Amino acid sequence: MNTIKAGSRMTVKRIDINTSVLANNETWAKKNARRLEDNGVYAVNLMSSPGSGKTTILQHSFQYLVPALNVGVIVGDIATTEDAERMQGKGVPVVQINTHGACHLDARMISGVLDAFDLENIDLLIIENVGNLVCPADFVFGEHLRAAVLSTTEGNDKVRKYPDMFRKADAVLINKMDLLPYVDFDMETLRRDVKGVGSRAEIFEMAARNGEGVESWCRWLIEKVRG
Amino acid sequence: MNTIKAGSRMTVKRIDINTSVLANNETWAKKNARRLEDNGVYAVNLMSSPGSGKTTILQHSFQYLVPALNVGVIVGDIATTEDAERMQGKGVPVVQINTHGACHLDARMISGVLDAFDLENIDLLIIENVGNLVCPADFVFGEHLRAAVLSTTEGNDKVRKYPDMFRKADAVLINKMDLLPYVDFDMETLRRDVKGVGSRAEIFEMAARNGEGVESWCRWLIEKVRG
Repeated sequence: MNTIKAGSRMTVKRIDINTSVLANNETWAKKNARRLEDNGVYAVNLMSSPGSGKTTILQHSFQYLVPALNVGVIVGDIATTEDAERMQGKGVPVVQINTHGACHLDARMISGVLDAFDLENIDLLIIENVGNLVCPADFVFGEHLRAAVLSTTEGNDKVRKYPDMFRKADAVLINKMDLLPYVDFDMETLRRDVKGVGSRAEIFEMAARNGEGVESWCRWLIEKVRG
Repeated sequence: MNTIKAGSRMTVKRIDINTSVLANNETWAKKNARRLEDNGVYAVNLMSSPGSGKTTILQHSFQYLVPALNVGVIVGDIATTEDAERMQGKGVPVVQINTHGACHLDARMISGVLDAFDLENIDLLIIENVGNLVCPADFVFGEHLRAAVLSTTEGNDKVRKYPDMFRKADAVLINKMDLLPYVDFDMETLRRDVKGVGSRAEIFEMAARNGEGVESWCRWLIEKVRG
């Protein structure tokens, strides 16, 4: 057997998600899209790695969104209801989906949860996905807009290493800008990489922990909803 | 239709990974385990979210591991060979697996890659998984030890929210301790949560970017290998 040199590369066949699983998801997504359309609901799929700040961004977004729109939130997690609890008391109905181990939300889960909302009186439905930069990219819900959060502490290589997520995103929210002085991350590389994967996403910089930069993302989103 | 109150909770049925997929993985894992055993190779499965610092930890670990053991590395990524390139020139054979979108490595991928190593002359094989805190938890390779990295910037709720990953870990590496002053994270909660999910993992604190704390993890690992 030969010793291999540093830097050898092997490619393996992608283990494709069962085609029928994706086709089935597509069917449910179309049903959701029709239902959202019929009720005038604009839906956003919010995705990121674990700990990038999705929930914190939402907590700070409500102050700008709620005066302008009727907002509803669906939050997906593998376990716990902590994220839903963090969003309580903001005048926004929040439904927590516990996936019990599943690595992403799918259109059928969303369909089941839509029943619980008074859709006629919702303008904007934000769906906070399970923390995962991989699997959620493959599963649409019938949403109008996909937003990917990336925090500066995750490093400057993430757009290149997880191209699917960013290619399919309409908005990229760069969070934890307050930690920029302490980490190896620069916005120039980020912007180049987002273009490099073929994305034309709008890019927003924020430090959600302090609420900084959240307003401009919200203003842009409100325009989209009213569009 | 009723408007739901903030904090409502819905649970959905877990979409289980196809049982045959896991059974098939188990079969390959057993083959790998036998082969590793026959060649006296100790294997480690290193997992975390994207950007927690797996590659940086490995880069700094080599200075302690390489003088003591013959080390080999397999690194899994969805796209790019950047991680393998970062580990070049350290006297360690590195093989990159590109999964082309798949969200985790599995035992069959590892089996294919084992062919490329001179296993008789490897003591320690470290397998850096795809950055994902969810799916890799379900797929064993036939490894001896599972290590989960969590960085302080990801927040203090991650062990509770991704319990499978931490329950099954033999070691938990807390990285980015240098950023502790700037984030909401405390080690007391972390230690309580690790126990809380039923894990008896050894916990190591480090700031891999500066190399701090990496040595004690390496000393512990070397003892395990020599076991």
